[in-house]
Amino acid sequence: MPTKDSCAIRHYFDWAASSPFDHGIINQVNSVAVYGNPSSQHCEGKAAKLALEDARKRCAAILNVPPETLFFTSGGTESNSIALFSNLIKKGQGKIISSLAEHSSVREGMETIERMGKLTGRIAVDSEGRVTPDILEKTLSKYGDVRFASCMAVNNETGSITDIASLTDVIRKKSGAPVHFHCDLVQAIGKIPVDIQGWEVDSASISAHKIGGPRGIGLLYLRRPAQSNEIFYSGGGQENGVRGGTENTQGALCLAACLEKYAKPETVNAEYANAISRWNKLITSLAAFERCTLIPRGRAEAEAQNGFSPYILQAAFKDIPGEVMARALDDMGFAVSTGSACSSSSPERPVLLAMGVEEKLRIEGIRISQGYATTVEEIDLLITAIAEVLKFL
Amino acid sequence: MPTKDSCAIRHYFDWAASSPFDHGIINQVNSVAVYGNPSSQHCEGKAAKLALEDARKRCAAILNVPPETLFFTSGGTESNSIALFSNLIKKGQGKIISSLAEHSSVREGMETIERMGKLTGRIAVDSEGRVTPDILEKTLSKYGDVRFASCMAVNNETGSITDIASLTDVIRKKSGAPVHFHCDLVQAIGKIPVDIQGWEVDSASISAHKIGGPRGIGLLYLRRPAQSNEIFYSGGGQENGVRGGTENTQGALCLAACLEKYAKPETVNAEYANAISRWNKLITSLAAFERCTLIPRGRAEAEAQNGFSPYILQAAFKDIPGEVMARALDDMGFAVSTGSACSSSSPERPVLLAMGVEEKLRIEGIRISQGYATTVEEIDLLITAIAEVLKFL
Repeated sequence: MPTKDSCAIRHYFDWAASSPFDHGIINQVNSVAVYGNPSSQHCEGKAAKLALEDARKRCAAILNVPPETLFFTSGGTESNSIALFSNLIKKGQGKIISSLAEHSSVREGMETIERMGKLTGRIAVDSEGRVTPDILEKTLSKYGDVRFASCMAVNNETGSITDIASLTDVIRKKSGAPVHFHCDLVQAIGKIPVDIQGWEVDSASISAHKIGGPRGIGLLYLRRPAQSNEIFYSGGGQENGVRGGTENTQGALCLAACLEKYAKPETVNAEYANAISRWNKLITSLAAFERCTLIPRGRAEAEAQNGFSPYILQAAFKDIPGEVMARALDDMGFAVSTGSACSSSSPERPVLLAMGVEEKLRIEGIRISQGYATTVEEIDLLITAIAEVLKFL
Repeated sequence: MPTKDSCAIRHYFDWAASSPFDHGIINQVNSVAVYGNPSSQHCEGKAAKLALEDARKRCAAILNVPPETLFFTSGGTESNSIALFSNLIKKGQGKIISSLAEHSSVREGMETIERMGKLTGRIAVDSEGRVTPDILEKTLSKYGDVRFASCMAVNNETGSITDIASLTDVIRKKSGAPVHFHCDLVQAIGKIPVDIQGWEVDSASISAHKIGGPRGIGLLYLRRPAQSNEIFYSGGGQENGVRGGTENTQGALCLAACLEKYAKPETVNAEYANAISRWNKLITSLAAFERCTLIPRGRAEAEAQNGFSPYILQAAFKDIPGEVMARALDDMGFAVSTGSACSSSSPERPVLLAMGVEEKLRIEGIRISQGYATTVEEIDLLITAIAEVLKFL
């Protein structure tokens, strides 16, 4: 099989794990010396505080939410954890439920709160990886006193888009105690149209490093920030008691700049059209390979496209374990993955399992994900490379 | 009173809140494009993983600990929290105790675990802000079944140095269940000689932004990393299950470079001599002002100097509230603080209160802190500026 020097020309198809850094933004922010501690009262501190609040306002403008509902965290995992672990100190003994397709930070967080004695439950997903209003309604009835539900907007392994507004509609119409609805937006922001306020979620998570930003910075949205006294962990009281630790001013400024560059509604829509066009080419070509099964199987249907993010694709190749396919493509200069990087050490593929995907396909599945910098030429090269692998393996 | 344009020439004396960034290190690290997710299996992921492990080894070399005992976190607050909150899932009902002089991340974390039903207690400090072996021994006897104790090495408000080895000696000699000893090293690393292994602490916290590094990166040391299954929060399983979230490779590389530049034993010793010389000048000059009271009062005695970090000084000026003095100095171009930035919103000054400092002095106290870039000329200017303020207020 032909191989390339793996350190030579590369084609990166693992944007869902982490995007390449936008060095322009990162270098520009780092060239401005706001090193003061935003909690300090002197000139340096005030300058840092101004910069931090400027970053918050700019993020809020793009996300169309009030600035006071946004809290800077160290990233998507921490944002999910703050929302989830807040259940540990809230009064009442209601159940905490989350979809079976959630990111590992929610999945493993659920296991932690179970160990702490909290009552939990899971929300099934359909064969396309989504929670539907019908599934949510039945789950709420089944568990009775639910107080918290977590469902992600775009699945990080399959790209399935869940209609979040239809789920919060179910929550709103439910009788009994209110349910806090948390939504992981990490794979949605900058990729699909997002309407945090319109969707009426109670909390949401955003990460910078999936949209060109640096590691170590993210956002937690809290619809009712006055309830920050119900937050599990406060540390030094920063971020209005929601997230302790000296504020990462530089990270916040980078995140604001990335949101402005990549997540404005008009940019998302324009990029969406380009992404769809590249993805249709990839999907059509892969579906034409006899040994390829798209996951879920209906992904290739034209009418299915609205239900999936055109940035993520899961595909299996008959008799080639995903790991082998990923390694072969890596040797040829293409970075793809065998699932979420955050659970790459656990081979179970829990999201695919929850969708009812059979074991053989789960083992054979690879995730291909693109970004704004992906080109049609790279899609062509990837298709050619996969064809090559299929000839030899 | 003479004032200066606060955005003109500045003299920064709030290094304990946050140090100026070492742009050389940060820019050098950011110029290297390791953007892969270290958990990914492809070339980009492996390169990032190599960089991350290289950073860990370099940190371990400077700190003289095995690399596998170091876990990258988002900073000192998170490192303290991971250690503290681990008590929430450990078996056994022993008490959790911490010194009354701890950083707010520990102090507020203690309140959180109290709300979770854990039995807690506090360790008093002497009038110089330290936990002594005698105090610790009595506290252990008083509370009986203690399982976790937290004492910081250098107090962030007064600079008091606690002899950590003498405390772990008490712990080691104690009969009954083992006590996990946690040590906040945030104000110690790069400032005083530190011997993590020699001191036999079970866990320790380090922050990058106090030694020239960026925000959002720190280290947690765990003497027995095999016990990482006793860690409260795992997220996506990164950092061996100790700290979830996509690893901040760039931050880790910056922290490693900062430790190499500022925290090598020989550098710390050389800088210590310079810092002592500048601080002695400041202390002698301040003590000569009739209206100045150093906190604690014995700080000016020559024999006291070994017991305090020559990077932090707390001083009160008769009839001038600390806030007023800090603002006056700020207007003249000097950044000082009225205490820990992390609790600047709470005026109680709990550390000074624990030391038995009377209310008037607590209100009048300011913290002056220096760093490796502070010059003798700046010390002279600060003394002159304080003299000016004393003339007018």
